[in-house]
Amino acid sequence: MIKAGIIGATGYAGGELVRILANHRDVKVVWYGSHSYIDQRYSDVYRNMFRVVEDVCRDDNLAELAKEADVIFTATPQGFLAGLLTEDLLSKTKIVDLSADYRIKDVEVYEKWYGIQHKSPQFISEAVYGLCEVNRDKITAKTRLVANPGCYTTCSILTAYPLVREGLIDVDTLIIDAKSGTSGAGRGAKTANLFCEVNENIKAYGVASHRHTPEIEEQLGYAGNCQVTVNFTPHLVPMNRGILVTEYASLRKKADGSLPAYEEIRAVYDKYYGNEKFIRVLEKGVCPETKWVEGSNYVDIGFVIDQRTGRIILMGALDNLVKGAAGQAVQNMNLMFGLRESEGLEMPPCFP
Amino acid sequence: MIKAGIIGATGYAGGELVRILANHRDVKVVWYGSHSYIDQRYSDVYRNMFRVVEDVCRDDNLAELAKEADVIFTATPQGFLAGLLTEDLLSKTKIVDLSADYRIKDVEVYEKWYGIQHKSPQFISEAVYGLCEVNRDKITAKTRLVANPGCYTTCSILTAYPLVREGLIDVDTLIIDAKSGTSGAGRGAKTANLFCEVNENIKAYGVASHRHTPEIEEQLGYAGNCQVTVNFTPHLVPMNRGILVTEYASLRKKADGSLPAYEEIRAVYDKYYGNEKFIRVLEKGVCPETKWVEGSNYVDIGFVIDQRTGRIILMGALDNLVKGAAGQAVQNMNLMFGLRESEGLEMPPCFP
Amino acid sequence: MIKAGIIGATGYAGGELVRILANHRDVKVVWYGSHSYIDQRYSDVYRNMFRVVEDVCRDDNLAELAKEADVIFTATPQGFLAGLLTEDLLSKTKIVDLSADYRIKDVEVYEKWYGIQHKSPQFISEAVYGLCEVNRDKITAKTRLVANPGCYTTCSILTAYPLVREGLIDVDTLIIDAKSGTSGAGRGAKTANLFCEVNENIKAYGVASHRHTPEIEEQLGYAGNCQVTVNFTPHLVPMNRGILVTEYASLRKKADGSLPAYEEIRAVYDKYYGNEKFIRVLEKGVCPETKWVEGSNYVDIGFVIDQRTGRIILMGALDNLVKGAAGQAVQNMNLMFGLRESEGLEMPPCFP
Amino acid sequence: MIKAGIIGATGYAGGELVRILANHRDVKVVWYGSHSYIDQRYSDVYRNMFRVVEDVCRDDNLAELAKEADVIFTATPQGFLAGLLTEDLLSKTKIVDLSADYRIKDVEVYEKWYGIQHKSPQFISEAVYGLCEVNRDKITAKTRLVANPGCYTTCSILTAYPLVREGLIDVDTLIIDAKSGTSGAGRGAKTANLFCEVNENIKAYGVASHRHTPEIEEQLGYAGNCQVTVNFTPHLVPMNRGILVTEYASLRKKADGSLPAYEEIRAVYDKYYGNEKFIRVLEKGVCPETKWVEGSNYVDIGFVIDQRTGRIILMGALDNLVKGAAGQAVQNMNLMFGLRESEGLEMPPCFP
Repeated sequence: MIKAGIIGATGYAGGELVRILANHRDVKVVWYGSHSYIDQRYSDVYRNMFRVVEDVCRDDNLAELAKEADVIFTATPQGFLAGLLTEDLLSKTKIVDLSADYRIKDVEVYEKWYGIQHKSPQFISEAVYGLCEVNRDKITAKTRLVANPGCYTTCSILTAYPLVREGLIDVDTLIIDAKSGTSGAGRGAKTANLFCEVNENIKAYGVASHRHTPEIEEQLGYAGNCQVTVNFTPHLVPMNRGILVTEYASLRKKADGSLPAYEEIRAVYDKYYGNEKFIRVLEKGVCPETKWVEGSNYVDIGFVIDQRTGRIILMGALDNLVKGAAGQAVQNMNLMFGLRESEGLEMPPCFP
Repeated sequence: MIKAGIIGATGYAGGELVRILANHRDVKVVWYGSHSYIDQRYSDVYRNMFRVVEDVCRDDNLAELAKEADVIFTATPQGFLAGLLTEDLLSKTKIVDLSADYRIKDVEVYEKWYGIQHKSPQFISEAVYGLCEVNRDKITAKTRLVANPGCYTTCSILTAYPLVREGLIDVDTLIIDAKSGTSGAGRGAKTANLFCEVNENIKAYGVASHRHTPEIEEQLGYAGNCQVTVNFTPHLVPMNRGILVTEYASLRKKADGSLPAYEEIRAVYDKYYGNEKFIRVLEKGVCPETKWVEGSNYVDIGFVIDQRTGRIILMGALDNLVKGAAGQAVQNMNLMFGLRESEGLEMPPCFP
Repeated sequence: MIKAGIIGATGYAGGELVRILANHRDVKVVWYGSHSYIDQRYSDVYRNMFRVVEDVCRDDNLAELAKEADVIFTATPQGFLAGLLTEDLLSKTKIVDLSADYRIKDVEVYEKWYGIQHKSPQFISEAVYGLCEVNRDKITAKTRLVANPGCYTTCSILTAYPLVREGLIDVDTLIIDAKSGTSGAGRGAKTANLFCEVNENIKAYGVASHRHTPEIEEQLGYAGNCQVTVNFTPHLVPMNRGILVTEYASLRKKADGSLPAYEEIRAVYDKYYGNEKFIRVLEKGVCPETKWVEGSNYVDIGFVIDQRTGRIILMGALDNLVKGAAGQAVQNMNLMFGLRESEGLEMPPCFP
Repeated sequence: MIKAGIIGATGYAGGELVRILANHRDVKVVWYGSHSYIDQRYSDVYRNMFRVVEDVCRDDNLAELAKEADVIFTATPQGFLAGLLTEDLLSKTKIVDLSADYRIKDVEVYEKWYGIQHKSPQFISEAVYGLCEVNRDKITAKTRLVANPGCYTTCSILTAYPLVREGLIDVDTLIIDAKSGTSGAGRGAKTANLFCEVNENIKAYGVASHRHTPEIEEQLGYAGNCQVTVNFTPHLVPMNRGILVTEYASLRKKADGSLPAYEEIRAVYDKYYGNEKFIRVLEKGVCPETKWVEGSNYVDIGFVIDQRTGRIILMGALDNLVKGAAGQAVQNMNLMFGLRESEGLEMPPCFP
């Protein structure tokens, strides 16, 4: 039985980790860390877990936790883990970090976009970017530190990855218009996230400045072996869960000047994702909907080629708390411990 | 492996059966019956099941299905099963009926409230009313036909049952004000259930005439060994899932003229539900919320004693598609096949 | 032109006052008071008012405001106005108080339910309870202080008032089950009111202890000339606006032992409300829906007689921010200044 | 008093016309045409209008109506008006057509995108495209036929118009990602628009094939005096009202190779919209939100220049039933009858 600790267990992503791990046959959660609710019963904070989780919340003492846990999930604010991580900790326990601290390899880029100093850049190179379907080979029993990708990022990258990798689109034209449910904004008590402010409303935010942008650019840059600069525009949608990305890019023309056919694009997706359990490339003409993946670890992908404009429109959907956070974190943990990759993640999406 | 068939698999309750059975280790679904989508792939109707269910929808040929299936779930309109059920069918397969056809023992009451003639009243007495926590002893390997309780009914009865059984409330004063998510209205294309008509709106409907009323009255009558006549008022709430009932009744005074104390009422709940996995009696001062049971088979119950009025206010919450329909149907199936009662039903509630 | 000041202009009720008064031909708002946003432009707080309101927010200096305004609306927390009101203020300006400070005539009841000491009980007797349809005669040019009724209260009282007044129901059996949109909870940044906590959820709260209870009891007591003690249970519904009350009471039997007929009850409603512009008694068989009154000053009322239980089920719906707060406040102001009672309040409900 | 008739008065756009005209001081509605509800009271279909509108619904007999009405609004399916319009009709009454029948000047484009034959192309050239802020000069007392723009179209065009007109962006790079509330899908009873299917969900639809595309392209082509081909992708959002467009385009560099500054772009918007009552160009850094325009005739516009990509991101928001349909129709009517352009349209947005 793997002993797991969660720091930030009372945030929405932390809560989803608790839900998923409650049904994971190989894991026992030994530490529900919560800065705000120390000594309160976990099920008094999240009453869905009444009679499921009996423990009380503990503090966020990583050093202590490292002695007890085989793996620690940090669902914490940016800078938290970077401020505390040491070689000693990593010698005792594995860490899956759901924050952005070790996602970006260029520390200057991190510091610029996040506006904070990175306190432990020495671990950045060791950290594996835990986008399982792309980096599976690097996530092994030897891996000590996984940087779990962001929710927008996972969806944005996976949707475009095969086309960027194969050079089918002009990456300079890539535009990502993303829509997210409100759980992505976290459980902090802010006026802007009140029911009456979000309900019956949609807005863009962080236009040309959202922090997930450099993460997308870096990873797609690796895929395409080139510099990638994108427009990424997130929107807040009045729903609890779900991310939908709509991506636009000009298709590279073939030698004869024509656009690739649907089947050619499809074949590329199948090449990369044909055997992926958690990526479903939808059939021709079907557009992803966030509802069809809710509560599951799936990413659904569809695309349409527009002969009029020469562009391809890519669409991807996932549950921001599952594949966009806790589910992918567990998927990474499974890989790190040599378990079946889908263990604990086989719940079908819930509809309606 | 138990072979299960579902008639009405493309309604919301049928879809939930598919979701739950997909993760049930002892069951294989062999027949996805759908009147409206014959020969279409099931996952083209419910795309959440893409790559999970590969089968196409079949017709609703019960006779044919009975040869293939060990158990049939009928998630069908009132009168459907009653019009087709025969001794021959029951000799070949077990049936869990999610419609109202065999719930009400008095056929005249059924015909009056439902406005249709009952075509096979000879099976009514055999049918077990599948409220597991109340009738568990009667649901055994010998049971051929279970009448799965309604969603409003399950919530209304379980919330009041211990108090009625023990004679703690004056049943003549019992009033049930119920609130339901919109999936309870089914997937039929009706103007009244369009997003724009339901969203940002709440209304009562079926006031003093809803069909679940006699079912509640009959079952609480058995519990209290008396005639029960209640006011039951359902309301439509702009959410997908969930039922909340708020029940009002005058407490019977004790010999000394005082009202029972909180602890006395609590003890009665614990007597009946203390060992029930799927009924959670909440702690003092905690009111149930539908969100805390969403996606799970739980019923959450809370109560407040009002010294000013001498009444007790009972509150119960469940997911109408799980404990109010498909989950309880599977719970009944588990009992009928001697499986662990909670098999396939252990998913914790999903929040947010 | 009447000069109006608003204290608490950046709360939801205050914002609705601004919206309504913007279209009132006889009123000019001269003071947008806001404790939290002093010196910020009003339209930076409520961007719907961009280019409609150019003013900046000012403090809540009542003494200063009284010099400038002919009428002050206080949409403030309980105790605010009571702590500041003086004879001097009332000699200079009229006040419509949207808080509870002067609604309850018995100061002990106020102090018990609100848990605060009343700082100016000497004005309670002067304050007119501004339920216009009931107390219209008392709201005149001489009125200096109106206690504007609460949202739940307005809906609960108006729905039952004619029947209580005429002695048609047994008031001891009266139970009020109320459902409210989330704007009633205010704009304070609380976790419980975040989108993800309210959406897809319904719950009761303040069971047997909500502060609107004594206000309902007092006013219905005046109507029936008797002591009234009710159960009042509010519920939080995932919608922005709207209150629906469902009320249950036993009908008094007639001399011959029978229940009153529909027409007899209807006649009583028509007697009191037949000429009321803002109260719409719906036709037989029609249940009120909050959506049908949204954005307007209407109260919609319907009822059903249940022959089986001898009870009548009353239903009332209003927009909590309009007839439940700002609209009624303007209605009161119109009466106090001798204007047409419906001036500025004639916007039809907005659907969908 | 202008006598107005509405054909299609029981659709959502028709209902909004009724709401707006109810408060228009110069108009009396003399005909509530409804194919589906003939002879039923209008207020039985839309109960918000109970006691506001007393009329019954009539048929869609344009010839008869033309005798009674000074102006007819047709809120009808594509092809309806084109199939009935005659010189005789236009000699008797003015028509504001809310359908697409006369919006597109090239009849082949219309027939290709709408898949129907145009039955009266002879009136296309006469019809004025009723985008008031752009074509105000052409909408006069002599105008007999106005083609009222679509909801997506109004928002998409007005957001980009000044920049296209002034040649500030490369129109070949223009991409429009649009998000709409569900009332845009109409009141037809379709499974896809049921509450449970739309709620907690977002999806793209009509990708690269939506019928508003050629309308946008034609009008922006006039503005830029060039051929315009865009990607337009609509999305369905779980809210009743509102459209938000997010548009992406490469800015044309200035002679010195630099991008225009914020102030330069702003000045262009101000040049075209500075005096427009219903177009609010928001302040720097403010992104439009649909909630801030709900119920009003405003279009809110904001923009961000991205130095990294050389693109400008434009955002526009409006209420699809008001400025996107009924409000603009009334604005056109006001112009056609020489009334104040904003008459009946001065309601501020409703929040929350």
